[in-house]
Amino acid sequence: MKELRLAIVGHRFMGRAHSNAWNQVSKFFDPAVKPVMQVACGRDEEALRAFAERWGWAGIETDWRRVLERDDIDAIDIATPTHLHAEIAIAAAEAGKHVFCEKPFANTLAEGEAMLAAAEKAGVVHYLNHNYRRCPAVLLAKRLIDEGEIGEVYHWRGAYQQSWLVNPQHPLDWKLRKATAAAGPLWDLGSHAVDLAHFLVGDFAEIECRGKQFVAERPLAEDHTATGEVEVECAALITGEFQNGALASIETTRYATGRRNRHTFEIYGRKGALAWDMEDMNRLQFYSGKDPADRLGFRDILVTESVHDYVGSWWPSGHIIGYEHAFVHAAIDFLDACANGGTVEPDFRDGVRSLKVLEAAAASMETGRRVRLA
Amino acid sequence: MKELRLAIVGHRFMGRAHSNAWNQVSKFFDPAVKPVMQVACGRDEEALRAFAERWGWAGIETDWRRVLERDDIDAIDIATPTHLHAEIAIAAAEAGKHVFCEKPFANTLAEGEAMLAAAEKAGVVHYLNHNYRRCPAVLLAKRLIDEGEIGEVYHWRGAYQQSWLVNPQHPLDWKLRKATAAAGPLWDLGSHAVDLAHFLVGDFAEIECRGKQFVAERPLAEDHTATGEVEVECAALITGEFQNGALASIETTRYATGRRNRHTFEIYGRKGALAWDMEDMNRLQFYSGKDPADRLGFRDILVTESVHDYVGSWWPSGHIIGYEHAFVHAAIDFLDACANGGTVEPDFRDGVRSLKVLEAAAASMETGRRVRLA
Amino acid sequence: MKELRLAIVGHRFMGRAHSNAWNQVSKFFDPAVKPVMQVACGRDEEALRAFAERWGWAGIETDWRRVLERDDIDAIDIATPTHLHAEIAIAAAEAGKHVFCEKPFANTLAEGEAMLAAAEKAGVVHYLNHNYRRCPAVLLAKRLIDEGEIGEVYHWRGAYQQSWLVNPQHPLDWKLRKATAAAGPLWDLGSHAVDLAHFLVGDFAEIECRGKQFVAERPLAEDHTATGEVEVECAALITGEFQNGALASIETTRYATGRRNRHTFEIYGRKGALAWDMEDMNRLQFYSGKDPADRLGFRDILVTESVHDYVGSWWPSGHIIGYEHAFVHAAIDFLDACANGGTVEPDFRDGVRSLKVLEAAAASMETGRRVRLA
Amino acid sequence: MKELRLAIVGHRFMGRAHSNAWNQVSKFFDPAVKPVMQVACGRDEEALRAFAERWGWAGIETDWRRVLERDDIDAIDIATPTHLHAEIAIAAAEAGKHVFCEKPFANTLAEGEAMLAAAEKAGVVHYLNHNYRRCPAVLLAKRLIDEGEIGEVYHWRGAYQQSWLVNPQHPLDWKLRKATAAAGPLWDLGSHAVDLAHFLVGDFAEIECRGKQFVAERPLAEDHTATGEVEVECAALITGEFQNGALASIETTRYATGRRNRHTFEIYGRKGALAWDMEDMNRLQFYSGKDPADRLGFRDILVTESVHDYVGSWWPSGHIIGYEHAFVHAAIDFLDACANGGTVEPDFRDGVRSLKVLEAAAASMETGRRVRLA
Repeated sequence: MKELRLAIVGHRFMGRAHSNAWNQVSKFFDPAVKPVMQVACGRDEEALRAFAERWGWAGIETDWRRVLERDDIDAIDIATPTHLHAEIAIAAAEAGKHVFCEKPFANTLAEGEAMLAAAEKAGVVHYLNHNYRRCPAVLLAKRLIDEGEIGEVYHWRGAYQQSWLVNPQHPLDWKLRKATAAAGPLWDLGSHAVDLAHFLVGDFAEIECRGKQFVAERPLAEDHTATGEVEVECAALITGEFQNGALASIETTRYATGRRNRHTFEIYGRKGALAWDMEDMNRLQFYSGKDPADRLGFRDILVTESVHDYVGSWWPSGHIIGYEHAFVHAAIDFLDACANGGTVEPDFRDGVRSLKVLEAAAASMETGRRVRLA
Repeated sequence: MKELRLAIVGHRFMGRAHSNAWNQVSKFFDPAVKPVMQVACGRDEEALRAFAERWGWAGIETDWRRVLERDDIDAIDIATPTHLHAEIAIAAAEAGKHVFCEKPFANTLAEGEAMLAAAEKAGVVHYLNHNYRRCPAVLLAKRLIDEGEIGEVYHWRGAYQQSWLVNPQHPLDWKLRKATAAAGPLWDLGSHAVDLAHFLVGDFAEIECRGKQFVAERPLAEDHTATGEVEVECAALITGEFQNGALASIETTRYATGRRNRHTFEIYGRKGALAWDMEDMNRLQFYSGKDPADRLGFRDILVTESVHDYVGSWWPSGHIIGYEHAFVHAAIDFLDACANGGTVEPDFRDGVRSLKVLEAAAASMETGRRVRLA
Repeated sequence: MKELRLAIVGHRFMGRAHSNAWNQVSKFFDPAVKPVMQVACGRDEEALRAFAERWGWAGIETDWRRVLERDDIDAIDIATPTHLHAEIAIAAAEAGKHVFCEKPFANTLAEGEAMLAAAEKAGVVHYLNHNYRRCPAVLLAKRLIDEGEIGEVYHWRGAYQQSWLVNPQHPLDWKLRKATAAAGPLWDLGSHAVDLAHFLVGDFAEIECRGKQFVAERPLAEDHTATGEVEVECAALITGEFQNGALASIETTRYATGRRNRHTFEIYGRKGALAWDMEDMNRLQFYSGKDPADRLGFRDILVTESVHDYVGSWWPSGHIIGYEHAFVHAAIDFLDACANGGTVEPDFRDGVRSLKVLEAAAASMETGRRVRLA
Repeated sequence: MKELRLAIVGHRFMGRAHSNAWNQVSKFFDPAVKPVMQVACGRDEEALRAFAERWGWAGIETDWRRVLERDDIDAIDIATPTHLHAEIAIAAAEAGKHVFCEKPFANTLAEGEAMLAAAEKAGVVHYLNHNYRRCPAVLLAKRLIDEGEIGEVYHWRGAYQQSWLVNPQHPLDWKLRKATAAAGPLWDLGSHAVDLAHFLVGDFAEIECRGKQFVAERPLAEDHTATGEVEVECAALITGEFQNGALASIETTRYATGRRNRHTFEIYGRKGALAWDMEDMNRLQFYSGKDPADRLGFRDILVTESVHDYVGSWWPSGHIIGYEHAFVHAAIDFLDACANGGTVEPDFRDGVRSLKVLEAAAASMETGRRVRLA
């Protein structure tokens, strides 16, 4: 079997999640090419070496440009903070490497468009890791929508709620600075929510957004005795309308006490309805208006059957999967696309599509005005 | 014991719900005055007579002005469509009658202000029937907030979702015409949601609102072979900020397939969080940040204990109450206020307060711009 | 319209619940005869007088025998402790009065059989108030079973869990003495559970039962400084088999900390499954094996539609009802049966049927052996 | 770092789950010895070779006796059907190999006792894979009990419900034959339930058990046109009492339509209560009687915090884990025990302890009589 030789850039949270995916994919699935974990790249050599050893990366590099020069690398997995995505991805594409890129796609739409242009020009496979698309329950939602079980959509009611900033001692890390993160939950969480809305409902026609800073100063990560200014919003509320006429609401926050990673949507259509929550990711709630009048109700579907996407490759019915499994599902599809010269969604086109919405939201947050998207 | 002689205007859904409350209140509670169901008023004499007999109203009148002239009436219960509230309430106050008024308060802020002025000038008791304030679970939410268990509030995430308009054959009734209903779910459902937000969080500083008409034409109620234009929005999304800095979102719709009467809120604060849903009205979800780190979680509180407000007067612990019971809770407080010369919340001041928000929302829905409230 | 003149014996918890039903039934339903609340009977004259006045009983009597002699009484509502049921019910039947009898039916099977014989001989209407049969969600369960949606039943898994005895200071009241209550939760709660099992699955073939006394001594109700012996079991677990081959388990306890009045069942059949919980009584969980393989799941049915039994007479869709409403549903059916010379289920036959099971369980609890019932 | 060289016997469902654990353990945890996946053993050489290659086993053997003779094996992982456990485990112990054994422990108590004796005599580490003990939510339950948050236990209400035999076409596989499986769900599922009851409550004093065969004949696995006799029970209900006086009920079945792998328990104690369900394995319900009277309720704890056992080594808060993760948790503890000469629970002593209960249950199922255990 052919191999796909991978390099990863980044070795923190996403470095681990991606490495796990490359390890697991050939165990539970049968990719058309075998992923070879060739090299891990980062700047902290000691930490990097430990990371590579633990996760099975054959070698290390401390300069990603050096990685791109190597002939024994077929694809680059970008698992760095957002502001580094564009430069690496563009260079990787130009070097003819396929690109597996963590989200949020980029800090600006301009960056994102350049990334897309470079990837398309190079003809490489480009994938943007909105992992939630590959939760089996989300894929079942998609299937039900595509089969017409929901009908004309009236409402998308979404929220991505975390709570880690409720603690006032949480330091001013890179996620709270504009230069590295572009924005607060709007980028970090909103990019996921917008991508799911795109996936399940379609494109936005117009939006407005309201942001808020609850806490303006935080201890410095470098020096806890000093404080610095939080540069991004603490929460952002988007409302708007899709091109197909459905209404949208998306609430993103890091101040939802009691919610740890609650990414939820409700979809209401003329024929049926759906609801999902990442904290209970193996289940989908489905209401069918076709049921008899005396037995209408949301079905609580445990999405762990062999007839569901991906999940049958893991364990028997009723045995749930966890957070990291969707990364493995992405890995199998990325590998297959690389092997077959195909594409894999979401890709950089989807990244650009989402950045248009996020930039519009950011603009609305500033001006207080509605922004048309189409 | 003293008596309070009541007249009711209106004998449909709310006429029944109010009549039931006047019947039940002396059975389960001990009001300071005994309600006497003196007269029911309406225009359809035959239906009215049947209604009066069924519910125990001693007599009938077909002209509410005639009711106000009677000396044997101490209070007027207004259970009519919204557009009739102002005229009746003002005249009732001028006639020195206490007023128990169904929601939505009025079609316009101007009407509402006139109602308040009249009631205050007359010195009568005035009550606006936002019944959800008197669900024991909502009162427990209020108690927890007042005791500081939630702390500084970051988020109010509310929704009032119904689905009765998903059926395209639902006729163009009075709730879909501007003259009688002022607006669609914004008034009907939004008034409830805004009132609860006022009750639990406080006043709004600024809002924006987006409305939508999914279905523009419907069969006429009078003639199903003809159609007419739906004059009000089908759904309305409000976002905004409270004066205390908390963010707000309120989603109101009659197109949420699968939701019959889901009135829900989530409140996230620095110290805790709350969640409630009218379809499960006997329960309150409460998250306390004071719990030990390994056992944090939303408590599912069955609010049926004798230590909870009102509910101990019904049945033993664990025996739930239903929709109509909150009306009985309103009745007891209204009666006590009438007996003691006191006040009862929410009252016409709260009605004016909510109409300011609703009119701002309606304006924003038109213009697409944010509206400042304070 | 004809009248049915009622007398009630008992004026505590059940006296209130029954009186409420007689009051409410003509408001929300249209019984074939009008209930007239003629006389309330009890031994504590002062409390009785207050009760009668509050609930609308026209007169009082302090001796139930005197009530039975009166010509202006058509039916007797027995709302006393269990040990008094037999004597009153038999005398009432012999006096030609219809009988509405609270559960548990009787302290012994012999008593119950005598009650049934008397009622049948007299040709009066006899009703045993297992109110849970008339929860709309339970009736929907029955409908689904009767329509074949569940198929051959494999399992009944039931429990009736309360927690009021967890408090060691709870006094030794009549429910903890053999003479007045016959048994502990086996009679009090088990009678409900067995009745529902009869209603939904059928008759038992064989059972075994294990009881337990967690707390043997309690403060006397009369004198808190002294203690007395608890004479009944604290919890009782029944397992067994139905005549149709289904397995049964029924757990009854007053020591289920955190459960206030959780009466729950799960039914698993070849084609479908059902689950219900009294603490969430407006909902029924229904799983249909006929659903497509990728969208199987328990439907969460909010049983508040006009197509559901009884509930459409209360409020619009989505407006839940509470504990006491099932009593009103019993009242309408009892009145109709009295008017039409019909019957109403469950009746004394069902009482005898359940007592056979309960006595068998009590015997098994003593001997530790299985007991055959058929 | 030292190594622990492993051999696995068996390469079906459990072979995969165990192999995954040996792969993952060094990625997410830091075991005191490094597991080396030396050899996989099975009889179907072709399938075995594919299995070994996929999962990273360095070599294969088709005779487990040959494995035990090898010097380069330190521990044996037994992932075979139950009836093979004893012979392999005893020989492995005698060969001085540590043993990691899948459940159910053995077909008979005699076998189990021999296994324990051999392991103890050899002084090897012996582990019995009741994986549910290492779900973080179950460990939190244990912690709460140990800290006294539940108090004296009154009730264990457990069930392990599957539904795969509802399909009448499911063939007569090894799990339905006595020689290979000893019993039906009593062994397969009941062993898990009993182990959790032992872990969380303690030893049993007395039990009774009722079994049932719903379907007596099934198509042969080898030849679908012929049928054979199902040799084991389809469902088994255990009730009983613990030595500490708590009541127990355990329901095991493969006929619970709609339940795929629902392993659930409720624990009620004098001070608090707990509830858990494997289909929702990342959550624990905890009720504390210490909460104020107006805010008592079951806490829904999402057990994904770094303060919880094991789970902090996976992902950040709120990111759930799945079925296979508990196997990894077992792997880390087994490796540490091997490295340190320690023990790891549950072990063969726990296996014997459970078999005593299961054999008593099987006897009771036959005779219909209670069986004392202590």
